[in-house]
Amino acid sequence: MKALVYNAPGEALQFGDYPDPAPGDGEVLVQLRAAALNHRDVFITQGLYPNIRTPSVLGSDGAGLYNGREVIINPGTGWGDNPAYPSRNYQVLGMPIDGTFAQRVLVSADRLASKPAHLSWEQAAALPLGGLTAYRALFTKARLQSGQRVLVTGIGGGVALMTAQLALAAGAEVWVTSGSAEKLQRAKKLGITGGVNYRDADWQKQLSALAVDFDVIVDSAGGEAFAHLVRLCRPGGCIVVYGGGKGLATFSPQHLFWRQISIHGTSMGTDQEFQDMVDFVAQHRITPVVDSVYSLSDGNNAFQRMDRGLQFGKIVFSIPQ
Amino acid sequence: MKALVYNAPGEALQFGDYPDPAPGDGEVLVQLRAAALNHRDVFITQGLYPNIRTPSVLGSDGAGLYNGREVIINPGTGWGDNPAYPSRNYQVLGMPIDGTFAQRVLVSADRLASKPAHLSWEQAAALPLGGLTAYRALFTKARLQSGQRVLVTGIGGGVALMTAQLALAAGAEVWVTSGSAEKLQRAKKLGITGGVNYRDADWQKQLSALAVDFDVIVDSAGGEAFAHLVRLCRPGGCIVVYGGGKGLATFSPQHLFWRQISIHGTSMGTDQEFQDMVDFVAQHRITPVVDSVYSLSDGNNAFQRMDRGLQFGKIVFSIPQ
Repeated sequence: MKALVYNAPGEALQFGDYPDPAPGDGEVLVQLRAAALNHRDVFITQGLYPNIRTPSVLGSDGAGLYNGREVIINPGTGWGDNPAYPSRNYQVLGMPIDGTFAQRVLVSADRLASKPAHLSWEQAAALPLGGLTAYRALFTKARLQSGQRVLVTGIGGGVALMTAQLALAAGAEVWVTSGSAEKLQRAKKLGITGGVNYRDADWQKQLSALAVDFDVIVDSAGGEAFAHLVRLCRPGGCIVVYGGGKGLATFSPQHLFWRQISIHGTSMGTDQEFQDMVDFVAQHRITPVVDSVYSLSDGNNAFQRMDRGLQFGKIVFSIPQ
Repeated sequence: MKALVYNAPGEALQFGDYPDPAPGDGEVLVQLRAAALNHRDVFITQGLYPNIRTPSVLGSDGAGLYNGREVIINPGTGWGDNPAYPSRNYQVLGMPIDGTFAQRVLVSADRLASKPAHLSWEQAAALPLGGLTAYRALFTKARLQSGQRVLVTGIGGGVALMTAQLALAAGAEVWVTSGSAEKLQRAKKLGITGGVNYRDADWQKQLSALAVDFDVIVDSAGGEAFAHLVRLCRPGGCIVVYGGGKGLATFSPQHLFWRQISIHGTSMGTDQEFQDMVDFVAQHRITPVVDSVYSLSDGNNAFQRMDRGLQFGKIVFSIPQ
């Protein structure tokens, strides 16, 4: 089959032939129609993940056909019995297991969910990993309620946008931050109330002048700015952390304990959360934001776009048949 | 009445005459037999609290007699309807309301709980604020279960010791840190499994060699060492923060989100938690650790002992009749 092959950290990916996977017991071969990029794919090509195996096929997000059924793939395997955290056997599709940046991918039969009918192949491929992480962050960790005020930092990323979209569908008032005025403008078209540019030195003052007392803040930056997030929370509110692009997070213990604030780390989610997320997306007819569609043969440009943080929404691959 | 009077930030406290309070509707005058010091009392004398009013009487913890009944006082008033966080009207006895470092204190009648019969006056006075904060931290925030492994940092402080004692009574395995080898020795006599000296540069390595995968960590330090606490937690575990003596806390977002760890700020507790704590202490016959007993007239030496962090347990005042 044709695939986007990863040969070594730091090297360009190569589009070419790759051995067809052979299904074992309980496994199925999905004929992919679209796949989507995640930061983890970029981090792996930069050698930032342990246990890298090459040559291999990256990609956690995919949508395609199995036996004529239109499916999306749950990228997580082996979560285990405790919904609070994944077992040691948990792994995400696309390193070390070959992933979705190929014409076909091998998965357990129980990793398939029906593609929501209102989504194109590209939109469906944009959903799994970001939707799962966002769903667990908002509903399991933050226990989001209708009418609450939510802040999502770094809008533009796939998880951040999906978080904003799920929160809006749940009846929340959503605010955002971004480092780009253009992304803030685009976010407003999705129904977001407003936002500020975190590159402004006084962004937190600007935001406080517009909205206070956030019930839920969803962050993937960390860094020194994290201390401001604690101050932007209402008493009893919470911050959910699913990433840390700016490094070590800092906060004032006093601001946390006087105001009874919680910080929850989250990543991916359970099989139940995956199915609940797909059902929620279908019920509310949520359409993931697709930033751009690349052909697999143009994979290196897609990876570069994500590495530069230029995207607004998911970077998707159309898979040649 | 006689009282330990606070006249101005930075000035020595004065033991002397102070106007007797006059009860209004729903208020009662408790004849105090003992009171106990908290860090907040010391911080207030250093001018570190807002809205300081002088002259005044400090003190949040007290035990005494009302109408022949032996009582301890719930130091918090006006928590409000939401158990998740206190209302804006919440206040703690002893600034701005006159507190327990006096022969008599005025409180609402509904602030009284029966003194657990197994406790002396000094032990009973040592219980309220520390017991309440520790109870909410362990049972409401961390949802501690029997058999879990708990780490309490800075053992020696009143809340830390009470946290360790409540956790032991709940069937947990308890570990501690301290800056003093002597305090570590004394802690072991309480039933604690072990501990390490946080002044050792490699304390977290020492601790990891002894015990791993803490279910619950209760911290009042913050600072750079906080990042180690996140690494010491088991996946899905939590850190409860009730103080921040070492200033800004830092942590790695990656260590938080990969391992699904939560951080909860907590301070004081609801009326229900106060009663539940008193019942738990009575049922398990827990005896708060009393570091030392001072007479009220020797108040400045008691404050200095706490300011220097010399204590192991609560610093208590015996009240002259």
